[in-house]
Amino acid sequence: MTAPETTVVIPLYDRFTALDVVGPYQMLALTPGVRVVFAAEQAGPVRDDCRTLQMTAVGLDEAPRPDVVVVPGGPGTVHVLEGALPDWLRDVHATTRWTASVCSGSLILGAAGLIKGLRATTHYRHLDKLPLFGADPTPERVVVDEDARIVTAAGVSSGIDMALRLVELLTDTRTAQAVQLWTEYDPQPPFDAGSPARAPEDVVELAAEYEAAALEDAMRAR
Amino acid sequence: MTAPETTVVIPLYDRFTALDVVGPYQMLALTPGVRVVFAAEQAGPVRDDCRTLQMTAVGLDEAPRPDVVVVPGGPGTVHVLEGALPDWLRDVHATTRWTASVCSGSLILGAAGLIKGLRATTHYRHLDKLPLFGADPTPERVVVDEDARIVTAAGVSSGIDMALRLVELLTDTRTAQAVQLWTEYDPQPPFDAGSPARAPEDVVELAAEYEAAALEDAMRAR
Repeated sequence: MTAPETTVVIPLYDRFTALDVVGPYQMLALTPGVRVVFAAEQAGPVRDDCRTLQMTAVGLDEAPRPDVVVVPGGPGTVHVLEGALPDWLRDVHATTRWTASVCSGSLILGAAGLIKGLRATTHYRHLDKLPLFGADPTPERVVVDEDARIVTAAGVSSGIDMALRLVELLTDTRTAQAVQLWTEYDPQPPFDAGSPARAPEDVVELAAEYEAAALEDAMRAR
Repeated sequence: MTAPETTVVIPLYDRFTALDVVGPYQMLALTPGVRVVFAAEQAGPVRDDCRTLQMTAVGLDEAPRPDVVVVPGGPGTVHVLEGALPDWLRDVHATTRWTASVCSGSLILGAAGLIKGLRATTHYRHLDKLPLFGADPTPERVVVDEDARIVTAAGVSSGIDMALRLVELLTDTRTAQAVQLWTEYDPQPPFDAGSPARAPEDVVELAAEYEAAALEDAMRAR
C-alpha cells in the first residue's frame, strides 16, 4: 500500500485516442493508493477521435494538483498545441513527480516546453516532429528522463507498458507486477506487425493512409 | 474497406473494467467499415469498477441490431448475471456474426446459455466458474468457436489480442495488421508477470488479494 495518496490527472481533449487514455488509466487506477482524475479545458463530456466514445471530465481549473500527469495523444493534438493545456502543463509540472505522455501527447509536452533538450519518443509517424520542440527523437517504446521527471511513450498501446513502469516508480516492483497479473497483461498479438520495422511494407503504407485520413479529418473539424 | 458497415455493440454495466471495453473498442473502431455503439440497460452514463471513468451509453432497447457483440468483464458482472443483459444477448446472438467476451464477461455469456458445451476462457481467477455454465475451461488467451460463433478472451488486456483476431475475421489479415501497426501494438511489458504460471508466488497472492477486494466491494454495492 502507498500512503499518502498519489493523484494522477489525465487531461482529455476533443479527438483524443481512447486507448492512449485507458491503457495507462487501468494500470494506475488499480494501484492501491492511486486515484485518477480526468480533466478537460471545459468540464463535461469529451469525445474521442472515433467520435463514439464519450468520457466525463472535470474542468482543468477544478482538477486537484497532480503528482502525476499522463497526456494522451490523438488526432485532436493539432488543436491543443496552443492555449490552456500547455499552460496548465507548464504550471503543474513544477511540482509533479512525473509528467508523462503517450503517442502524440509528447507534442503537447513539447508545446509546453517540457521536452527541450531531452531524448523523447512518440508514435512512429510523429518522431520527425520532436525536433520542432528541441527534443531528440528516440524510437524506443518508453523513455524515462529521471532528471527532467519526464516519461514519453510510443504509439497508442505503449501507454500500458509505460504505466507499468510508472506504477513501479510510484510504488514498488511487486505491486507493479501484481497489477500486470491482475490485468493478465501477457500479450500474445496474433501478428508481428506492431512495429514499422517488422510490418510488411504494404501494411506500413495502409496504416499510414489510415493515420493520415484520421489527421485530415481532425484538421477539417475546426 | 469493408462494405456494408459492420455494427459492433459493446454492452456496459455498472462496475465494468475499462480496459476490457477500450482494448477491443480501439481495434474495432479504427477498422474501416466498422462502427461501434456502447449500450447499457439504462441510457446515460455508466461508471467503471474504479468508480472514476464514466462513459456514455444508449439504452439496450435503442441499440442497433449488432453484427458483433463484445461483452466486457469486471466486478459488476455479479449483478448482471440475471436480467436484461443475458436476455438481450440470447436474442441478438441468433443473428450476430460473432458474440465475444473479455475476462469475466464470459460468465455473462454463460448466464445467457451461450457457452454450454463449448471450450471457453476467462480471467484466470474465474476459470473454475465456467463449468457452472456447462463450458469447458481452457486457459488460453483467446478461444474461437467458429461453429457456435463465440469468441472468449482471458483477463482484461487479452481483449486487445482477441479484437485483432475479430478484425481479421471481419475484414482480412492486412487490415488487422494495419490496425495493429497504427496502434503500435508491439508490446514490451517491463516484467514477465502477466500470467499466473510465470509470476512470482507472492505476486500471485497479492493480485488475488486485490481482485478479491474489488469483488467484495462490488458485492457490497447492492
